Amino acid sequence: MELEDSLFPLLREVNIGIDAYEVFQDAEWALLIGAKPRGPGIERADLLDINGQIFAEQGKALNAVASPNVKVMVVGNPCNTNALICLKNAPKIPAKNFHALTRLDENRAKCQLALKAGVFYDKVSNVTIWGNHSTTQVPDFLNAKIDGMPVKEVIKDDKWLEHEFTEKVQKRGGALIQKWGRSSAASTAVSIVDAIKSLVTPTPEGDWFSSGVSSAFLIAANLNSGNLFLSCLGEGGEKWLSHHFTMYTAGLHKWKSLWYSRRHSFQHAMQIKGRW
Amino acid sequence: MELEDSLFPLLREVNIGIDAYEVFQDAEWALLIGAKPRGPGIERADLLDINGQIFAEQGKALNAVASPNVKVMVVGNPCNTNALICLKNAPKIPAKNFHALTRLDENRAKCQLALKAGVFYDKVSNVTIWGNHSTTQVPDFLNAKIDGMPVKEVIKDDKWLEHEFTEKVQKRGGALIQKWGRSSAASTAVSIVDAIKSLVTPTPEGDWFSSGVSSAFLIAANLNSGNLFLSCLGEGGEKWLSHHFTMYTAGLHKWKSLWYSRRHSFQHAMQIKGRW
Repeated sequence: MELEDSLFPLLREVNIGIDAYEVFQDAEWALLIGAKPRGPGIERADLLDINGQIFAEQGKALNAVASPNVKVMVVGNPCNTNALICLKNAPKIPAKNFHALTRLDENRAKCQLALKAGVFYDKVSNVTIWGNHSTTQVPDFLNAKIDGMPVKEVIKDDKWLEHEFTEKVQKRGGALIQKWGRSSAASTAVSIVDAIKSLVTPTPEGDWFSSGVSSAFLIAANLNSGNLFLSCLGEGGEKWLSHHFTMYTAGLHKWKSLWYSRRHSFQHAMQIKGRW
Repeated sequence: MELEDSLFPLLREVNIGIDAYEVFQDAEWALLIGAKPRGPGIERADLLDINGQIFAEQGKALNAVASPNVKVMVVGNPCNTNALICLKNAPKIPAKNFHALTRLDENRAKCQLALKAGVFYDKVSNVTIWGNHSTTQVPDFLNAKIDGMPVKEVIKDDKWLEHEFTEKVQKRGGALIQKWGRSSAASTAVSIVDAIKSLVTPTPEGDWFSSGVSSAFLIAANLNSGNLFLSCLGEGGEKWLSHHFTMYTAGLHKWKSLWYSRRHSFQHAMQIKGRW
C-alpha cells in the first residue's frame, strides 16, 4: 500500500506471492532481502540449515523461471553464505551475476572516515570492504582516499584507523540494534540502491566499489569497464568457513591470513587488480 | 546513525536535541513531524491540549530563533490544527510560510485514480484535496485529469468516484494501520519530499498541487508562479471547528457546505483560482 501511495516514478506494479516459481518469472533483477534472523535459543548451525533451505529453494526457482541473465543481490543475512547457496542452486545463471551486499559496510566506512577527517562524504573514495558482511570484515583504509589523497596522509592517527575505525565499521550494525532496538532498515535500503547503481552505471574514473562475489569469478570485475573490488562469498560460521571459504583465488591469501597480515594481502589484491 | 550511513548527497549534518530554541536556530525549513498520537483512554480534547502545547512551543521557538523567512511543514497530526497553533505563536514569520501536509492524501488519490483507469500515476494531474487531513477530507475528482482529460470522461463510473474513491482516500490511513499495525511512514516521507519539491520548483504548466495553508493567506497561491490549491488550517475537532475553521475565505462556503454541495463549492474555488 505504501509503495503504491508513494507514486515512485519507476514502480509499475507490485505483486505479492509466496511461490518463488511464480514471483521470479522472467525476473531481470532479484533482490533477496528476507532471511530468518538468529533469535534466542537458535544455534548458528540451525540458522544456516533454515536459511540454506530458503536460499537453495530461491536459487532453484531463479534457475527455472527467471531471465537466464537475472542479476541477484542477496541482502538477507548471512548474506555471503546465502548468496553462495543460491548460486550453487542456480547452475544456469552466470555465477558472476550473484552479489552479496557489501555496500552498507562500504557506506558506513566512508561515513566514519568523512566524520573523522571533517570532510563531506563525497570526498571519500576507493573504499574496499574485504571479507564477509560480519564483524570479521576488514574495511580497507590503506587504499582508500580522501580528496584524492591516501587516507593516512589526511587522518594522521594510526591508532584510530587501525583500531577504532575498523571496529566501528565492523560493529556498526550491532551498535544500531543496541541503540534503536532493531537492525538497520533505511540505510540498508539506500545501500542496495547504491550497489545496483554502481553495478549498472560506469564507475567514476579512478574509483571503485565493494560487492560480495564468488571468488571463482574475478571476471565480474570488468563489469562496466569500471573497477570492482571483491569481497567474497562464504560465511564465517566455522562449518561453512572450512568448506567453502576461499578468499580471493589466484594466489591471494585466505581470509585469516589477510586479517593477520593486512598490508601484505592488500598488496596481492592490488596486483590482481591489474589483471582484471 | 542510519542517516549518516546513507551518505545522502544533500545531508551535511545531523543534530539531535530537545531544546527547540537550540535546534531551530537559523532554520530555513522546519518539518514538524512529531505529535502525540491518540491512544486508549485519551480524549480528543486532551490530545489537542497536549499537542497544542507542543506546537505552541515550537511556534514560539521558530519565531524567536529561526530564519525570519523559515518555511514550516507540519506533519504531526492533527496537522491542520497543529499548523494553525504553530502559526498563531509565530507572528514574526509570514503566515503563508506555514503548511500542513496534504500531499499524502493527494498522492493516495492519484494512485487510486490511476489504478482504476489502468494508467500510470504520472498521467493523473490536477488533483486537489479539500479540507483537513482526516476522514472528512474531499478528494476532488471533478477537477482532476487523466491524460489531460477530465476524470469523469475516462472513468465512467460515477458511483465508484462519488463513493468508493472518496472513501478509499479518506480512510486509506486507517486501512493501512489495520493491515500493517502501524501508521504510514515511508509514503508519508515520500509525500513530504514531494510537497517541498512542489513548493520550491515551478509547477508544471496547467497542473497544481494541494497543500494546507491558512485561509487568510491565499496570496501563498502565487508561490513560484504556479497554481496552488488550498486546503485549510483548522482541525475537525468540534471545539477547533467552531472557533477557527473558516474554509476558503473570499466568499467560499464553509467546509460543511462544501461537503454537501461539492459541485457548487468547486465552482467558487475555480473562480478564486483566477484571482490568485
